[in-house]
Amino acid sequence: MDGSIYTQRAARLVQLLQTSFETPCDGAWIIKPESRRYLSGFSAEDNFFTESSGSLLINGTTRLLITDSRYTLAAENEAPAFRVYTLKKNFVEDIPDFTRNLALTHLGFEEDYLTWDLHRRTTEKLAELSPPTTLIPMNSMVDSMREIKEESEIAALEKAADMISDILNEVISALKPGVTEKDVAWQIESSAREAGAEGLSFPSIVASGPNSALPHAVPTDRKIRPREPIILDAGVRLSGYCSDITRTVFLGEPDDTFKTIYRTVRRAQLEALKHIQPSVESTRVDAVARNIISDAGFGAYFGHGLGHGVGLATHEGPRLGPNNATPLRTGTVFTVEPGIYIPGKGGVRLEEMVVLEAKGPRILTRNDHFYDFS
Amino acid sequence: MDGSIYTQRAARLVQLLQTSFETPCDGAWIIKPESRRYLSGFSAEDNFFTESSGSLLINGTTRLLITDSRYTLAAENEAPAFRVYTLKKNFVEDIPDFTRNLALTHLGFEEDYLTWDLHRRTTEKLAELSPPTTLIPMNSMVDSMREIKEESEIAALEKAADMISDILNEVISALKPGVTEKDVAWQIESSAREAGAEGLSFPSIVASGPNSALPHAVPTDRKIRPREPIILDAGVRLSGYCSDITRTVFLGEPDDTFKTIYRTVRRAQLEALKHIQPSVESTRVDAVARNIISDAGFGAYFGHGLGHGVGLATHEGPRLGPNNATPLRTGTVFTVEPGIYIPGKGGVRLEEMVVLEAKGPRILTRNDHFYDFS
Repeated sequence: MDGSIYTQRAARLVQLLQTSFETPCDGAWIIKPESRRYLSGFSAEDNFFTESSGSLLINGTTRLLITDSRYTLAAENEAPAFRVYTLKKNFVEDIPDFTRNLALTHLGFEEDYLTWDLHRRTTEKLAELSPPTTLIPMNSMVDSMREIKEESEIAALEKAADMISDILNEVISALKPGVTEKDVAWQIESSAREAGAEGLSFPSIVASGPNSALPHAVPTDRKIRPREPIILDAGVRLSGYCSDITRTVFLGEPDDTFKTIYRTVRRAQLEALKHIQPSVESTRVDAVARNIISDAGFGAYFGHGLGHGVGLATHEGPRLGPNNATPLRTGTVFTVEPGIYIPGKGGVRLEEMVVLEAKGPRILTRNDHFYDFS
Repeated sequence: MDGSIYTQRAARLVQLLQTSFETPCDGAWIIKPESRRYLSGFSAEDNFFTESSGSLLINGTTRLLITDSRYTLAAENEAPAFRVYTLKKNFVEDIPDFTRNLALTHLGFEEDYLTWDLHRRTTEKLAELSPPTTLIPMNSMVDSMREIKEESEIAALEKAADMISDILNEVISALKPGVTEKDVAWQIESSAREAGAEGLSFPSIVASGPNSALPHAVPTDRKIRPREPIILDAGVRLSGYCSDITRTVFLGEPDDTFKTIYRTVRRAQLEALKHIQPSVESTRVDAVARNIISDAGFGAYFGHGLGHGVGLATHEGPRLGPNNATPLRTGTVFTVEPGIYIPGKGGVRLEEMVVLEAKGPRILTRNDHFYDFS
């Protein structure tokens, strides 16, 4: 992606800032790593939440990337559309310096990422400026921009989905009773690195037998066994973009209960996919899957939402769940992942990642490890 | 560690809450993953900063671990000293339910981790309770408790330091011109997993030639060459506890400039170590190293602090830098890592991890890859 994409995105943000609030914001302060990368190209992550590798200050005339000396060179290389300001002391104390001549009065900030303490210290310092600057919550404005993917972003997400689909394909083909969940998780991670991923988009879940009843299981030393459910949930990050896929597999034939559970989850997924189209309410799609699971008698065992957006972050908007109805928009990329989890026994989850196009969802995760237990 | 350690830590926190503020706090709300693990044993991480895997509510009579259904079983297994409350809707809306009968009036929170938005929403809900509850910043109280390590924690940190010392030993012995920085980083990560680490404590730095001038370099496809500085900075996480070590190595003999730089950094480190003792000011130790580097003419090229605490977090207190003087306390574990970085040319950093005992620092990182360029 060249610099012009970033100047375009910044210009769109400035326009939104001016039109979306009663009192227009005349600038935005961006600290969330994914939004920082989206708007500037600067790819550094925050290794530790409380240690920022930089932030952006954007208004109609200026694009500033504020970082410290550890990152100056990387910032200059990666974000040519931005002027790089290297901190002299620290962010708060340098405010009068890097805001000089910007004359900001209302500065948007990311209310779901900025800590209470940094908000307090920043507010105090901004109040001393002339004119004084007030921080205004942006109500997830950049997150909302990021939900609608550009073509180059969809291509990047497709590549990330392809890579994890292939990896899971190989890992599943090689599965044998006796290997531990940790072994399998490590195979996924090694394959991702060898295939050239920046890393995993989240720690892989490999959960077998009763462990598969934990939707967020951490891989253990448990050895996988024949006929039990084995949930594999994994993704890679490639050029910043994430993928996310889940398959549930069995070595040999499961018992009738898990056949029924699997059939139910798969049917819920396929029906939900059928109901996805531009402008449909997110809650409606969730309800389609949830009703199928409830009608089959497993309503108490589907404790999470149906899906979530995927992009520079593994979890982003849109959210598909029983609450917070929102019309699904063309160009969004999200997962469809119903599940049924029976405590102490095991669970089944199936997850596809799709892009919503004008004519409906297109599945990005190309992996055919599905069963037809009819 | 058994449940009693956690009940003791919680009791100590309650006592501090009652004695450290003008208006005593009658409870604490803990959301920071490391503090949550420290106080409860619950080991889940927050894979994404904005997605909590749970929080603690602690007062004189109650220890509550609030999580959602994905983590209920893990929480019950790992935190027997806590009663597990599984969220019905979400944290904010469930507040009236899980605070019933607690009669909290002043509830401490972690001001450097809680986001502005969640603070706002939580404050609103707490104000509706009877009696109303007010959130009070705890001023890093739990972080401060965590700085002084118990014996079992020092043993855990020592194991983590041993593991990364051994790994670096092998990786350095196998270094050859032509391998890429990414290759070497991957060797470190694979070795860590094979040795049984939970993971790395941070993404490894392998920075060669001019890249070694970037203190936070990300490994690239650059092939390492003879006679240039190669900085390796890595750590593992074992039973939750982190390690952190840096060595700078050369394949063949460096030029005189880098010999001088290396000698200077090593001397700064050894002198700093000599000055570390209980109650010495953190700034004093930093100054010892910094003065040696300045006197050698490299003062402009040491842009970071001398060290940081290590524990359940890779970076925690105490901080050793030119500002914020604090007396070093017995039982703290921290790094001593001076460096000199010449832009465009390269850099040298040497890092040891030490525990401060009554008689002085004991080095935990046992790796002898040092040069004597005299």
